[in-house]
Amino acid sequence: MAKMNKTDSPRLVDFSAQYKRLLESKMRESVNRLPAPEILKDSMLYSLEAGGKRIRPLLLFATLDAFGKDPEMGMWTAAAIEMIHTYSLIHDDLPSMDNDDLRRGKPTNHKIFGEAVAILAGDALLTYSFQMIAETPDQFVDAAGKVALIRHLAEAAGPQGMVGGQTADMLGEGKKLTLDELKYIHEHKTGKMLTYSVTAGAIMAGADEETIRKLEKFSRHLGLAFQIRDDILDLEGQEEMLGKRVGSDESNQKTTYPSLLTLEGAKRALDEEIALAKKYLVETGLSTNLLEEITDLVANRNN
Amino acid sequence: MAKMNKTDSPRLVDFSAQYKRLLESKMRESVNRLPAPEILKDSMLYSLEAGGKRIRPLLLFATLDAFGKDPEMGMWTAAAIEMIHTYSLIHDDLPSMDNDDLRRGKPTNHKIFGEAVAILAGDALLTYSFQMIAETPDQFVDAAGKVALIRHLAEAAGPQGMVGGQTADMLGEGKKLTLDELKYIHEHKTGKMLTYSVTAGAIMAGADEETIRKLEKFSRHLGLAFQIRDDILDLEGQEEMLGKRVGSDESNQKTTYPSLLTLEGAKRALDEEIALAKKYLVETGLSTNLLEEITDLVANRNN
Repeated sequence: MAKMNKTDSPRLVDFSAQYKRLLESKMRESVNRLPAPEILKDSMLYSLEAGGKRIRPLLLFATLDAFGKDPEMGMWTAAAIEMIHTYSLIHDDLPSMDNDDLRRGKPTNHKIFGEAVAILAGDALLTYSFQMIAETPDQFVDAAGKVALIRHLAEAAGPQGMVGGQTADMLGEGKKLTLDELKYIHEHKTGKMLTYSVTAGAIMAGADEETIRKLEKFSRHLGLAFQIRDDILDLEGQEEMLGKRVGSDESNQKTTYPSLLTLEGAKRALDEEIALAKKYLVETGLSTNLLEEITDLVANRNN
Repeated sequence: MAKMNKTDSPRLVDFSAQYKRLLESKMRESVNRLPAPEILKDSMLYSLEAGGKRIRPLLLFATLDAFGKDPEMGMWTAAAIEMIHTYSLIHDDLPSMDNDDLRRGKPTNHKIFGEAVAILAGDALLTYSFQMIAETPDQFVDAAGKVALIRHLAEAAGPQGMVGGQTADMLGEGKKLTLDELKYIHEHKTGKMLTYSVTAGAIMAGADEETIRKLEKFSRHLGLAFQIRDDILDLEGQEEMLGKRVGSDESNQKTTYPSLLTLEGAKRALDEEIALAKKYLVETGLSTNLLEEITDLVANRNN
């Protein structure tokens, strides 16, 4: 099939709008139906509905599409992924963690509901995410598939994945990190869940091991690109706000790709990661035009 | 088979010692093998190894025994249950929740590791618990069984179970509760996980729906008995410490069974719950001598 580029294919825009809408109503309905204290549900929904790019669910839907599968079969797992992502933001924002008052321009969960409810809403979302996968109708994923999805989710989100990365991030605060340490943090704190979003789609589609390995490599490079772009945006944003060039280690104590590689070096690293991601994508031989569009989006995004 | 009573059957003592030992080494080994930051593993193990009665795993093992099954097949689920219980204690003890400095005579997790690591260790244990069940060898539980175990665990531990109960408990603090409100809190905060410990064994043993319903009723009454006994012990402990009779509502703002029913009324309620628990146990027609011994232990325990 002919490869499309962004200008002649607005497919991702429609695809993204359609499945974001379906996902958001699935999450809302799933929380609303719970027999649970209203304040807990309000707190869960407040953060679930705070917006965001929904990049992880989108990766899952686009991966199913690449295998020629109906993306809707991934709705339960997509909701689980977004619930895990959301819980991690709620807990990361707590006073004893990053102590953030605002996220995406809105007060953080604990500023509205208090710390106790925010912790519990995070716990509730994390727990509920596994139930979501277990509740996928059997015609979409059989029991063995669900067990695989759950095991991989726990690995990606738990101590050997996201929680481990967040721990390393906390420990590294205020310290000068090496490039390897910085990569460890990102590959765990954000990378594992991005990779899971892709491999979960492949598992559901019944992909062979070799294709799964290639998709894992694709998503690992995509995840690093995502993080490098984040660091570049942060730096350029600071410069814009301050109206002058910011030396990265002056700005705050945080080690970033630009602080280790210079801004130009970070931009080169970003290009390299994007090129590698696309290389592995092509190697799969799947209909990956949506995944390529997402990759371009990550490389060029402005927020 | 002849019914045994506590004096002529020390079976629970040996059974309990044997499976507690196996469980504790299973949990230690499962955490130690994780490729994760050492401080996170230390924090997880600190609370996992802080002792405790292991009443929930014991209920699971004894239920498998009642069906004539090898209790060891429940080891992964038992570890999951104890990890969930442990994470809930770590989060409940946090400054923004119950703000406890000591648990079982030892400093609480956040007093040793700091709040951030304590929150993350709780998140890690919660996440890892689902992986434990997913990793049960297939010869013990097939994929459909694992999905059922995971779905029920999420229901028992999440917003419609333990987390919902903890939320209601926080909201009720300092307020005078009705007996129905108090029951709601206990049935969710502690009851659902006790019930799960029994029904998980029944699911693994392939029990029919009717037997599962009876075991659910057994464990619901056992759970209430457990909580009433807790409240009675608290009150008697306070009286002993103060060397005088304590009017329950003077002591602190917390609504308890004795504060609602008087001490004598609470003791009668305890006897009634124990009698109902045993009635449903007998109705199952299973070899329930270990479960009966656990029930007597709950009724008579002194700590």
